[in-house]
Amino acid sequence: MVTLLQQSAKKTNSKIMMIVIDGLGGMPHPQYYNQSELEVANLPNLDNLSNVSSSGLTLPIDHGITPGSGPGHLALFGYDPVKEFIGRGVLETLGIEINLTENDLAIRGNICTINQEGIITNRRANRINNNEGQRISKILQDISPSNFEIHHVMEHRFAIVIRSSNTIELDEHITDTDPQIEGENPLKAEPIHSTAKNTANLINDFQATAKKVLAKETQGNMILLRGYSKLPKLPSFQEKYLLNPCAIAAYPMYRGIAKLAGMTIKKCKPNIDNQLEVLKKNFKNHDFIFFHYKNADAKGEDGDFEGKVQSLEHIDPIIGEIRNLNPDVLIVCGDHATPSLTGEHSWHPVPLIIHSKWTNSNGIKHFDEKHCAKGDLGILYAKNIMNLALSHAGKLSKFGA
Amino acid sequence: MVTLLQQSAKKTNSKIMMIVIDGLGGMPHPQYYNQSELEVANLPNLDNLSNVSSSGLTLPIDHGITPGSGPGHLALFGYDPVKEFIGRGVLETLGIEINLTENDLAIRGNICTINQEGIITNRRANRINNNEGQRISKILQDISPSNFEIHHVMEHRFAIVIRSSNTIELDEHITDTDPQIEGENPLKAEPIHSTAKNTANLINDFQATAKKVLAKETQGNMILLRGYSKLPKLPSFQEKYLLNPCAIAAYPMYRGIAKLAGMTIKKCKPNIDNQLEVLKKNFKNHDFIFFHYKNADAKGEDGDFEGKVQSLEHIDPIIGEIRNLNPDVLIVCGDHATPSLTGEHSWHPVPLIIHSKWTNSNGIKHFDEKHCAKGDLGILYAKNIMNLALSHAGKLSKFGA
Repeated sequence: MVTLLQQSAKKTNSKIMMIVIDGLGGMPHPQYYNQSELEVANLPNLDNLSNVSSSGLTLPIDHGITPGSGPGHLALFGYDPVKEFIGRGVLETLGIEINLTENDLAIRGNICTINQEGIITNRRANRINNNEGQRISKILQDISPSNFEIHHVMEHRFAIVIRSSNTIELDEHITDTDPQIEGENPLKAEPIHSTAKNTANLINDFQATAKKVLAKETQGNMILLRGYSKLPKLPSFQEKYLLNPCAIAAYPMYRGIAKLAGMTIKKCKPNIDNQLEVLKKNFKNHDFIFFHYKNADAKGEDGDFEGKVQSLEHIDPIIGEIRNLNPDVLIVCGDHATPSLTGEHSWHPVPLIIHSKWTNSNGIKHFDEKHCAKGDLGILYAKNIMNLALSHAGKLSKFGA
Repeated sequence: MVTLLQQSAKKTNSKIMMIVIDGLGGMPHPQYYNQSELEVANLPNLDNLSNVSSSGLTLPIDHGITPGSGPGHLALFGYDPVKEFIGRGVLETLGIEINLTENDLAIRGNICTINQEGIITNRRANRINNNEGQRISKILQDISPSNFEIHHVMEHRFAIVIRSSNTIELDEHITDTDPQIEGENPLKAEPIHSTAKNTANLINDFQATAKKVLAKETQGNMILLRGYSKLPKLPSFQEKYLLNPCAIAAYPMYRGIAKLAGMTIKKCKPNIDNQLEVLKKNFKNHDFIFFHYKNADAKGEDGDFEGKVQSLEHIDPIIGEIRNLNPDVLIVCGDHATPSLTGEHSWHPVPLIIHSKWTNSNGIKHFDEKHCAKGDLGILYAKNIMNLALSHAGKLSKFGA
């Protein structure tokens, strides 16, 4: 692993437990005495843990950069989230649990509305409902070449997976047909590299046929495509770290990213008690466990300050129970901040705790943004967490003599 | 210097004094009220200095990365410790003060034991004593080609220096013959680049001959080779910083690394009082002085908490005396942490003090890990210390207009 450093990971019996609280970080809210969700929440287990652990704030990507869930998680798993970019098409298909092979091409599609001149009047076909979206996706499937799969995602959103074969080599280096603006025509896909000509032709033929068969529709009468991408070839946790990892995550996209990293995906319900049960069953059999808690992010995105506080108070006793399982290294982190004040992902650094018998406990009294800013780890890039985890677990050899 | 920044160092009369306390950083120890060696030690001079200086914590390499002494010191001297890697063979020869030229090849060797099937039964020949090691090294020298030098290091350890010549070009890009595991055969050296074929042949011929002549030995009957390396071509302190540096270090490896950086090496005994005497004699004649104190690391590696505390208390009054010499910039730093709790190098950040008339005194009351974590310099990469030193000494020009 870490070939740059000429170091190598060591196989040991120690166990690393990584709890990812999605959208963990927040911001002071003027309606709540200028405190953040973490500051307001009553978190006895997290406070107790912080007090005897190393702590700090993580930058998921870099200062001022708001991450999506894909890069946010890749960084937590020790991949460079800028170099190992996961395209929009792949993320969309991971989110609906479609299996991809490395040569398949995944595409994000919008069903949209154009007028008689062919100009886009609504990029999302007025957010047609799921039934309409499904019906139109079915029409698109019927006119597709045999190696095309059309998967409805939600409302106006769909994904295309083009399966590769011996005779068809797919190349993602083509331009979007979605101009990302209304009042213009859908674009033709152009090859960026000459090797992508065939793929561009496939896309243009499909879009032209779609336009014909959808012409009689009133709302969803055209499609826009973007985010052509293939599965990135990530070195797995086995290759990179000699770990035997598993993922306990209820939502498809996170399961998909974990699978990319080579984790065994455990079945669980979107319910923290069920996730804990699944964890207890599998705790013995893996030396790295990724445990994903979605609700904090969901409440943050809803702009629901009190809901986010409650979601944090809901995970707190679970963290106490997980601590009682005695993993050698226990990490509590987040993929990004989702302040309920803004109702969306943000660039703010995210609180982090690392606990092991080798941590410099820094006597932090409460687990929140302000206290973690004074932690002994300072502000660090999230992609460094895995090196810390491995070192704390005794799994990383010395660099140089 | 610092070509990335297109800046230049300026020659001035100011003087920089860098005190490196080897293995400075520690960890809270459960048997000592969860305090570290620095927290427990009585350090009036260091406390007094911290109180009127800038302070922080350094990362020798990066978060979670445990450094060897080589990269730890390169970083303190302002070199990138990842790019300017010093191979094991070179470090071993530096450690016994063998002169190398840039084209010579240095190799780390183990005398080992193999059984009748040729399988390694002990990688260190049961750590044969020094007499035995010397005797076998002598046999190896006798069967060597004329450009090979066999240097016994200690017990089962030896170094080979292959001298280059007009007719022999040496290439370090060959694989180890040491499989680093018992129960396997010694390996053949394979060229990694095609240009390394001749060097691989040299090594394989030597190893085959060694096997024959050692066959009658009971313990040390084979050799294992690794860490083929050449002297890295570092820009010297003169070139990089326009400094006229000297090193007051008692142990060979540190003297060797200082020499690589272009420092004049002063003779001194492994005794801090003698080192101070040598410093006082040479203080006027150099504008950069590297002063190395080994004992803290040695006690840490012994797992001797109280011994490490005493070693810190031993250097403390010396630092008071050095401060009285009035260097313009006084730096107290470490190449890595060596907590007596673990008894080995660790990845934990290392306390740092920089004092000059331009430092932001941050009113820190005690020189230890926890207080330095709250210092005005925060957590910084050790390779940045030299830029701070130069600026505090008025030796670094402005970056850009």
